Amino acid sequence: MKARVHVTLKNGVLDPQGKAIEKTLGNLGFSGVGDVRQGKVIELDLEETDAAKAEAAVKDMCEQLLANTVIENYTIELDAA
Amino acid sequence: MKARVHVTLKNGVLDPQGKAIEKTLGNLGFSGVGDVRQGKVIELDLEETDAAKAEAAVKDMCEQLLANTVIENYTIELDAA
Repeated sequence: MKARVHVTLKNGVLDPQGKAIEKTLGNLGFSGVGDVRQGKVIELDLEETDAAKAEAAVKDMCEQLLANTVIENYTIELDAA
Repeated sequence: MKARVHVTLKNGVLDPQGKAIEKTLGNLGFSGVGDVRQGKVIELDLEETDAAKAEAAVKDMCEQLLANTVIENYTIELDAA
């Protein structure tokens, strides 16, 4: 089973990478671009085939390693394929 | 319109961040985790309301700034909400 984890900064947390992208897009002539936020996406290949167990395991991984839950949110998507 | 761009390393390109996560998950006691890849996700707020024009603009942004197309793939998701 494949899992995809999105880790994004919480609203209100300053995102300097996003701001840099926003400014550079403006400099490159792209107009009409508002707020830009940059996050991480982590793709995991899991041996687990049970969706509920896989989700619980990935949630543990997020809490312990993948996300800094003080300033970051995470979402988990599972793909049985 | 909101756009979400995923930028991931192409297959075959070494992903040291992914490998570091994989190894650390093993050290933390998570077993059954195979290949781990880390990518970026960039969320953009666009003023453009036409989906086709928005997609074309975001594609240009990816080619010019957001992705290094030599080693990275990108996918674009648009969300009209």
